[in-house]
This record gives sequence, C-alpha cells and structure tokens, in this order.
Amino acid sequence: MTVSPFDHPHLSALVGDADAAAAFSAEAELRAMLDFEAALARAEAAEGVIPNEAAEAIEAMCAGLAPDTALLSAAARRDGVVVPELVRMLRAAVGEPHGAHVHLGATSQDVVDTALMLRLGPLLEDLERRLATVAGAVAALCRAHGDRPLIGRTRMRRAVPMTLATRLDGWGGPLGSHRGRLADLRPRLLRLQFGGAVGTRDALGDKGPAVAVWLAAELGLGPADPVWHATRDGIAELASWLSLVSGGLGKIGQDVALMAQDEIGEVRLKSGGGSSAMPHKVNPVAAEALVALARFNAGMLGTMHQALVHEQERSGAAWTLEWMCLPQMATATAASLRLAAELLGEL
Amino acid sequence: MTVSPFDHPHLSALVGDADAAAAFSAEAELRAMLDFEAALARAEAAEGVIPNEAAEAIEAMCAGLAPDTALLSAAARRDGVVVPELVRMLRAAVGEPHGAHVHLGATSQDVVDTALMLRLGPLLEDLERRLATVAGAVAALCRAHGDRPLIGRTRMRRAVPMTLATRLDGWGGPLGSHRGRLADLRPRLLRLQFGGAVGTRDALGDKGPAVAVWLAAELGLGPADPVWHATRDGIAELASWLSLVSGGLGKIGQDVALMAQDEIGEVRLKSGGGSSAMPHKVNPVAAEALVALARFNAGMLGTMHQALVHEQERSGAAWTLEWMCLPQMATATAASLRLAAELLGEL
Amino acid sequence: MTVSPFDHPHLSALVGDADAAAAFSAEAELRAMLDFEAALARAEAAEGVIPNEAAEAIEAMCAGLAPDTALLSAAARRDGVVVPELVRMLRAAVGEPHGAHVHLGATSQDVVDTALMLRLGPLLEDLERRLATVAGAVAALCRAHGDRPLIGRTRMRRAVPMTLATRLDGWGGPLGSHRGRLADLRPRLLRLQFGGAVGTRDALGDKGPAVAVWLAAELGLGPADPVWHATRDGIAELASWLSLVSGGLGKIGQDVALMAQDEIGEVRLKSGGGSSAMPHKVNPVAAEALVALARFNAGMLGTMHQALVHEQERSGAAWTLEWMCLPQMATATAASLRLAAELLGEL
Amino acid sequence: MTVSPFDHPHLSALVGDADAAAAFSAEAELRAMLDFEAALARAEAAEGVIPNEAAEAIEAMCAGLAPDTALLSAAARRDGVVVPELVRMLRAAVGEPHGAHVHLGATSQDVVDTALMLRLGPLLEDLERRLATVAGAVAALCRAHGDRPLIGRTRMRRAVPMTLATRLDGWGGPLGSHRGRLADLRPRLLRLQFGGAVGTRDALGDKGPAVAVWLAAELGLGPADPVWHATRDGIAELASWLSLVSGGLGKIGQDVALMAQDEIGEVRLKSGGGSSAMPHKVNPVAAEALVALARFNAGMLGTMHQALVHEQERSGAAWTLEWMCLPQMATATAASLRLAAELLGEL
Repeated sequence: MTVSPFDHPHLSALVGDADAAAAFSAEAELRAMLDFEAALARAEAAEGVIPNEAAEAIEAMCAGLAPDTALLSAAARRDGVVVPELVRMLRAAVGEPHGAHVHLGATSQDVVDTALMLRLGPLLEDLERRLATVAGAVAALCRAHGDRPLIGRTRMRRAVPMTLATRLDGWGGPLGSHRGRLADLRPRLLRLQFGGAVGTRDALGDKGPAVAVWLAAELGLGPADPVWHATRDGIAELASWLSLVSGGLGKIGQDVALMAQDEIGEVRLKSGGGSSAMPHKVNPVAAEALVALARFNAGMLGTMHQALVHEQERSGAAWTLEWMCLPQMATATAASLRLAAELLGEL
Repeated sequence: MTVSPFDHPHLSALVGDADAAAAFSAEAELRAMLDFEAALARAEAAEGVIPNEAAEAIEAMCAGLAPDTALLSAAARRDGVVVPELVRMLRAAVGEPHGAHVHLGATSQDVVDTALMLRLGPLLEDLERRLATVAGAVAALCRAHGDRPLIGRTRMRRAVPMTLATRLDGWGGPLGSHRGRLADLRPRLLRLQFGGAVGTRDALGDKGPAVAVWLAAELGLGPADPVWHATRDGIAELASWLSLVSGGLGKIGQDVALMAQDEIGEVRLKSGGGSSAMPHKVNPVAAEALVALARFNAGMLGTMHQALVHEQERSGAAWTLEWMCLPQMATATAASLRLAAELLGEL
Repeated sequence: MTVSPFDHPHLSALVGDADAAAAFSAEAELRAMLDFEAALARAEAAEGVIPNEAAEAIEAMCAGLAPDTALLSAAARRDGVVVPELVRMLRAAVGEPHGAHVHLGATSQDVVDTALMLRLGPLLEDLERRLATVAGAVAALCRAHGDRPLIGRTRMRRAVPMTLATRLDGWGGPLGSHRGRLADLRPRLLRLQFGGAVGTRDALGDKGPAVAVWLAAELGLGPADPVWHATRDGIAELASWLSLVSGGLGKIGQDVALMAQDEIGEVRLKSGGGSSAMPHKVNPVAAEALVALARFNAGMLGTMHQALVHEQERSGAAWTLEWMCLPQMATATAASLRLAAELLGEL
Repeated sequence: MTVSPFDHPHLSALVGDADAAAAFSAEAELRAMLDFEAALARAEAAEGVIPNEAAEAIEAMCAGLAPDTALLSAAARRDGVVVPELVRMLRAAVGEPHGAHVHLGATSQDVVDTALMLRLGPLLEDLERRLATVAGAVAALCRAHGDRPLIGRTRMRRAVPMTLATRLDGWGGPLGSHRGRLADLRPRLLRLQFGGAVGTRDALGDKGPAVAVWLAAELGLGPADPVWHATRDGIAELASWLSLVSGGLGKIGQDVALMAQDEIGEVRLKSGGGSSAMPHKVNPVAAEALVALARFNAGMLGTMHQALVHEQERSGAAWTLEWMCLPQMATATAASLRLAAELLGEL
C-alpha cells in the first residue's frame, strides 16, 4: 500500500528515487541497526567492557539475523520504535551466556539515530555526485548554446536582451554553493549517537567515553560528545540544505516551463508528457515535477523545524515527526537532481 | 521500499492506517479509474453518444483489466499521469470496433480527480464513524470518572480546582463540530470531475451536459458544473478539515502526556511503550504520536494550500503537489482517530 | 518601526489593508476589551451579582479610559497579556467602592478572545462585501468580454480553443463557495469567551450560566458553552477560510501574469508598475502581489494549525502563536480582495 | 496600525525586539538605499563613468534627502517597490546637469537587495553577540548549579538520574554550532547586488565589472558576480539559520516550562507573568514565548523556501514574499535571544 508518491508503484517513477528509497527501506534500516549493535559489541570488547567471545557471537548473529516483520510492526505500535524488540530478538538469537551483552549501555535512540547517519553518509555522497552532474549539464548547455540571444525577463515581462548564458549562470550558480554548504554541514551532521538512557552513558561507568570514541571510529562517524539526543540542529540543518537544493532546481523547472510556452518557444523539449485528450501535446512534465518537489520540500522543511522543540532528554513526539519528513525530503531532493539532469539533457 | 512512515512495514503500525492506506493503494486507484471509464461509457451510450455495444464491451473489459505495473510506471514518468497509458491499454483490450469509444470526451484529470472522489467518499464515512467512536470514548470516560477532581492548569501552572469532566469537555467538544463541518463540506467536495481537455467538454458537442449529469448519477457524485480542474478549493478545504481533526486529537495527546508525568499522575496508562534501556518504563507512545501527527498535518496543510495557485486550465506542478500531500494527510487523520480511540480506552 | 509589510508605511499600500489594520490596531483592541468589561458589568448587575451602581460606574469609566501605553507594554512583557494591567488601571479609575467589581469572574483569555471576536464580526462582513465586489468584477468582465476566444492551456501548453468565459468561470466559481463557507463557519467562530480561570466560571457560583447568556447577548456573540479556551478549532477554521480565499485570488493573479506576457498578450494592463531601469515597462504588480499573498497565507495557515496543540486549560505558547499569525492572515486576505477587485477592473 | 505583534505597541515588548525592528524600519531602509546610490555615484566617478562633480552632488543630496512618505506609499502600490519614485525624487533634488547620473546602470532590485544586506551585516553581528550572551548565561548556570542532581526524562517520563549539567549541555551545545554556521554562511550572504535590468549591467558597457568591484568595496560587501537577482539561496540559508537558532531556544523554553511545573519544581522562576484571575500565579511567560517564536519561525521558514522558485530574471511574486517573512524571522530570532538570556538569568 502506498500512501506516499515516493513509495507508489507508478508515481515514484516521476517524483521518487530508487536509490534514495533504498536507503530508507526497512531492510536498509535494520541492516544499519544491526551494524550498530555489532560495532558496539566490538568497541565494548576492545575496551574490556564485555568479553571478546561475546562480541564475536553478537557480531556473527548480527550478520545473519532476519527479524520477523510482524513482530517488529507490533513493536513499533507498542513502543514507538522497533529497537526494544530487535534487541530482544538479537539477545535470544545470541543466547546464553553472551546475550546479556547485546546493546549494553545503549538506548533505542542511539540505534535509530546512528543507523540513520550510517545511511545518510553514502546518500549525501550520491547527492553530491548528482549536483556535479547537474552542474555539468548546465555547463554543457552553456558551452553549446550559451551565446544564443535571449530576452531577459523581469516580473514576467520582457526586459532587455541578454544571452542564454546569463540565465544559465543563474541556474548553475547555486549548485556550487550547495556543495560548499554540504562540506560545511557534514561534520556537524554525520556523528555517532551514543548516550544510553539519558545521554550520560551511565551504564558504562568510566568506560563510556572510550567506547564512544572506538564506536565512532568503527562506524566512520564523527564524535559523539555531547550526545545530540535532544539537540536536533544537525538534522534540521540537513533538511534546510535538502530544501535549498530542490528549491533551486524548482527555479530551473519553472523557468523551463515558461520558456517552453508555445508562443515563446525559447526551449524545445525533445520529449515530454502526452495527454489522454490531446496525444500530440508535449507537456513539460519533468519541469513541473521540479516545481512540485521544490514546494513540497519547502513545506516539509517548516515541519522539520517544528521538531527542534524537542523537550527534555528525548521527545517521542518531535522525534517521530522527523521520521515523517526527513526521508521524504531526501528522496524529493534526489528525485529533483535526477529530473533536472534529465531535463537539461533534453533541452 | 518505504520512504514514508505511512507505507513503512513497521512504522505504519503506529502512524499509519490500514484502511486509509487501502484507499490510496495503486490497486484501488486503478479500480476507481476503470470504474470511471465504465460509467462514462454507460452514460455516453445512454445519451446516444456511443453505441450500446461499445459501452457493454468497455464495461466488460474495465471489470477485468489488470494493467502492467512497469508500463504504468514508465507512463507516470513520461506523462506525469498514468491515464494516457491506461486508456491505451484499455483501448487495445477492447479492440476494434469499440476501442475508439473508450474515454471519449474525457481527459486525464477527469479520471484522476473523479477516481479520488470515488475513494474519498467511503473514506470520509469511515472517518466520521471514527469521530463518533472517539466521542463515545470521551463520553464513557466522562461518565465513569468525570466527577473526579482535577486541578485546572493554565500556562503550565496549577490554577484552580475543577473536575475531569471540564477537561474532557474540551476534548470532546470539537468532535461534534468536526462532524458538522464534514456535513458542510461534503457537497462542495464529492463532485464529479468531467470537462475534457480544458473543461468545456468540447468533444461531446451539445451532449456534454447530459452526459455529465448521467455520469455523476452513475458514480454517486455531485454535479460537475463547472469543472473544478483548476479551482481546488474543495480539496484544500478537505485538507483543512483533516488537519482540524488531527490537531484537536493532538491536543488530547499532549494533555495525556502531561497528565501521565510521574510526579503528576493524573492518568495512568494501562500499557505503553517500553524502552530498550529501561524495560520497565511505560512511555505514552500513542499520546506522543497524536502530537506528531497533528504537527505533520498542520505543516502539510500549508503545502496543500500552496497548490491553490493552480495556473490556467491545469497545472501539472500544483496538481502533483496535491498528490504528495493529501493521501498522507488523510492517512494521518485516520491514524490519529484510531490512536485516540485506543488511548482513551486505556486511561 | 515596521517589521511587517502589513504595518510598513510604504509596503502596506501594496500588501496591507487599512480597514483590516484598523481592526487589529492596539486602539481597537483596547476599545473592544473595555467594551467587554463594560458589558460584563452590565450582565453581572442584571443578574444581581454586582450592584447596579457598580455597573454604571464601570461602564462610565470604560467609555473614557485612556490606558498608558508604556505600562501596557511592560505588562505584555511581564504577564504575556495586557489584561491584568488594564484591569488594575480600570479598577483604580473606578475607585472605591466599585473597583472590586471590575472583571469579576473573568480571566485574561476571556477578554482577549472576546475582544478579537468583537472585531472579527465586522471585519468578516467587510470581507464578505469584498467577495461580492470581486464576484461582480468577474461577472462584469464576463458580460463584456466573455465570448472572446481564448486558447485553453493545460500544463503550460496550448490545448484547445475555448472562450474567456471558461477561464472566468474558474475565477468566479470559488467566490460563491467562499460565501457559503463563511456562513457555515460564522456560528462556530463568533462566540463569547467567558469561563474565568479554567473555564468553569468558578467565581460566579450558580450565576455563571446566566451571566454568560446575558453577556453574549450584550455583545452580539454566540453562546459561550462550553468555553473554547483550549479548543481552537473555530479560530483555525477561520484561518483555513482566509487562506482559501487568498489562494483562489492567487490563482487569478498567476493567470493574469501569464496572460499579460508580451508574446501572449491575452490581457492588457491599463496600468502597472514601472521600473527604475526601464521606465516604460508595465509590470503586473497587483497580479504578483496576489500570488505572494496567497503563498504567505498558505504558509501561515500551517503555523496556525500548529497552535491547535493547545495544552491543558490554556497554553501561553499556542495562544501567542495565534496572535502572530491571524491578524496578518486576515489583513493579507483583505488586501488580496482589494487588489483583485482593482486588477479585474483594469484588465 | 499594528497587524504584526512585532510592530505592536504592547506585544512587541514580549515577542518583538527594538534593535531588530530598527534595522527594518522604513527610515533605516531609505537610509541604506540612499547610501547605495551615493556609493554607486562614487564608484562610477572613480571608474570615469560619471563626472566627479556629479558624484559629489549626488552624495550630498543622498545625505539629506527626506522623501515624502505619501509619495513612496503610492509608489509601492503602483510599482511594487519604492525605488523608481525614490530615484525620481533624488534626480529632481540633484537637478541639472547631474540628475541624469543618479542610479546609472542600476535597477530597483539592486537597491532593495543591497540595502537589505547593509542592514543585515550589523544585525547579524548583534545576533552573534547575543548568542555569546546566551551561551554565557548557560555556562554561568552550569558553573553555579551544574552538579545538582536532576532526573533525566525521556518521552515525558522519568528515566535515570543525571545532573543539571547534562541538560544544560543540551541547551548550550547548539549555540556554538550556530556561531560556526553563521561564519560559514556570511560570505555567501553579505554580497552586493548590482546587475542592472537583467543582471548583465548592460548600461555600463565594459565598465560594469570594475564599478561592481569598487561599489562592493565602498559598501563593505562581498563581490557581486554573478548577481543573485533570481538565485535566492543565500537569503533562504539565512532564514534557515534564523529558525535553527530560535528552534534551539524554543527547546530551552519548553524545558523550562516543564521544569517549572508545580509538582516538579526543578526550576523556580524569580519572576513571571501574573494572571488577571489569579494574581499570585507566576506564569513562565518568557519560556512560552520562546516556544511560540520557535514555531512561528519554523513555519515562516517553509514560506521563505517557497520563494526559492523565483522565475526568470526577477519574480515580483517571490521577491515580495521574502519581504513578508525575513524581517519578521530576524526579529523573532532577536527576541528569542533576548528572552532566553533574560530567562536564564532568572532561573
């Protein structure tokens, strides 16, 4: 069943993105969660918190565990997160005597947030590559046709002559800035979450900081101090970036749709959407989708920032709200980058 | 793959809703689209626009067509909607001599919008029943415990004594108003969409109005004049209602979470979420989810209203934006009603 | 100082509205607050709660009180509302022996919310008249030019020929629906707020209901039972309506801006904005402002619905949030209606 | 008249900010616009585009011009911006023979956007200082009381013991990150806008780049190439930052309101708001205002990002939308920082 167009068997081909969706699949999430548990066991063994044999047993079981979906679903309804049930399953699978060492000193939020970071890292690399692809497509267009005359338009009226290159500069300019912004925000974002019940790693005594350092290194994430259980500015900053990117591409889409108007004909679409009533029409489907995705992400961004009001050491309400928004935003941005590259290649 | 929590195999058990999701499944959508095409053929035969045999052939084929998902997916990407491809499939299936009578005088938007209305009708009845269920749960609580003393709280501080009934009045009051609002908006919303290319039913000549009347009657929808291709106030009004409902339930959730605080203990949760770090905690998971769903829908509502700026006779951008929001909003409201009923039953 | 364009000495001429702004001025608000206090005294005297002489003294003083702005400003910072200070001033002005009868049984929220309703009533009548004016302007345009041929446009491309009347139907249709919606929501909205500290009128004993009835009648508002201190669906529904109206007008603005494009020239603007670089350009300033106002209100609507999560018997946070949004939304809608009427008259 | 609480004579004392409001006053805006015109004349004289005498005459007149508000107001309604009228006034005041050299090669957007940057520079320095003040207040609290025991709370329930310092770390942590983010975004934001009609400085021939460099240096802004007429990512990024800051402070406000609950009493407010019904109550007014401001800015952020879809070389709609949001957002953030510092000092 497919409430969201990003998961819809048909519509996702337009506004969705297979790569981003894969990153947010339940399978990928569970895999990342088990990777966290395995790495935690290794880190705790390395620091002498649990026996090496326990870590080996846990790691082996994490590699193969195939959790039952119905149980996880019931757990999500009951506990708000699947982690308690997943840990129970993992402990049972590891069995005695090592089961008790599973998840030691961690809490659900450590698992969920870190598992998100493990998937965001590669996804952001993918988006960065796509930014470069779009920038390349703009540059190629500029090389091929940049010196063509184009009438500049302000407030929807003809202003003075310029060249296509001037408009393309406006399309391409932000793409480089977005890469700079991504470089700026990455170290603030891609950090381990590991704090235990309330962020103090109380269950690990004085071994907490060392385990955290080891664990971050195991997972290729930045340091965990202090925990960001309840300080969600890194996540909200990412949402801002995602909307900046899709917003700039929405401008390209809007411009293309305006340029392709029949009377204006500043661009011609090699292909485009047909109509059930008028088969010969060439609709600027990708251009319009870019506008829709930009507006969707802009609205979602406002909701993500509502989640900054994250009370006390963990807010079930604010945290859940993030889950409703961030995967869709990232997928919308991925789709925007894909569509923009395709659209620019077809002008 | 499951970008949205409403489609997620685990999370949908918390914030999703199986009934609402069924209404928005691709299967249900295709079924409603084919119902539209069959009813259109019947209406056009009744008005002498197409032969009776054609209508019978089309109707028979609509009943059994099982469209190929891959082709529809490619069509969504290419055309922005699946309808041109679906019509092509249906025409091919009907074959000569009747295939040319398929979809006569209609356009993609007629199919998509009407198919949505066909599913919203029953879904709104379901939501109305759930409103009654929640109202009943509040009333039962009031009968059982309404005269218990409760300290009234304003601006997060103790104010003066009252009874639980006073607070419950605040929970229940809007539920009745929501039913009144639904009665008000229904006739503005549940209307046939049928206008052809630009709303004039130009392909049907002077038979247009009669076909529209017949078609609306066939489908149990309100009249189609004028078309609402580009006037989306009915849809936006529905979105407002959905957010009003989930917002009021979010207030209940917030109140319950505050009342359940350990030091305050004005309510006790019979069950609640466990924690992976603290197994004995009883977290107000449903209450928090109500808050999250309320905030999600509030944000989505803002985005739905952005789609009111729907240019000319059809905006691909604004229309697509609706698809990204409305099914999620309706599902969020359905989930809120389900969770509220469960929560009230467990206090 | 003028942070908001609605209060700005220059920009308010474009996006603001003098009539709406007058309704939301501090002067009008204080006047309405004092009207509430005077009417409360009359109602309480009529029910024998306070002496007739007290009511007369209070009413006389309410008519003339000119509160000190600096004191009210300090009070707003300290108390979050000006009412406690205003009541203190009024009590001091009334003096002994009647001062103690001022504000008897009421709380700040009763005063603020009722004073808002007292101003919204006339403002909504004004907006309703403006709706009729805009509808008249659309109808006049239709009579004068409705049969002119116009190419219908879908997804930003030329579709099939129609007449201007078809597009104008799309502009005018929602205006009538908005009037119906306003009639529907008015009785849910324009209600007295009167509940005392926590909504129970605890200070009035068994006289509470009778005073409330009398007071509502005095003020020309609907009944007060139950109080809506914490159930803000009426206010949120109004916000939805305001955004529906401005959204539909935004569609007109967007259409006009597209029709006025130089190559398309489907409409000619008799006047329009000049440019500092190109004095002869005629910019569709009003049309663009309609789009901006529509998008502003759509976003604001999302924020207003966040305030539905209004905890316990009064939320300072959610209530304050409403004040930041609703007056701006109402003013934006008023400005939209004014601009739309002007724009339609100049096509 | 005062539609917005940020301009309201009473409410601005709570949610507004005098310093930020001063930066957005019409007076400050006109001053910055005239500073732009004076600097432009100097730069063009330095590059030999206009005579030195013209520059001197223009600069002298810019220093003293007191534009008529009524004319500017009419201009804003007519032209959408005041600049054409302001330039006309300035030209008339300069008189022959130098008047024709006023505003040479510039367009309204150059003036408006640059005048905004000239005021944002000092305002951001002010906000940065306030961030340091709040950080200092958190640190002082931590030094004084950080080792006090506090029960950590997750999902609104008691979890495990920690100290106040752990919670304060969550309050203070983002403040440092915000300063880093501000350093990152400043060079992307504080840039000259100078492109003439469509961004090409077509009226200046080959002197355009040199004038732009000189002008940027005169005004202490970053380089102008390429123009950002239609690429608004810098502005939208600022909006994101403003909401990140107010969002993080909203978390502090929410925490304080929860900690101050009577049964919990983890903090005591030295002062707080009184009630008209219950004079002895101490309401957490500042804490609640922090939550309201956070939610307001979150919603506004969504609207600001809608303005990223800025069509062609200048969108009157998208640009106007920014004016409706950004000053309010900056003022809300300034107010949040002021309130947070006050609140932390009173715990």
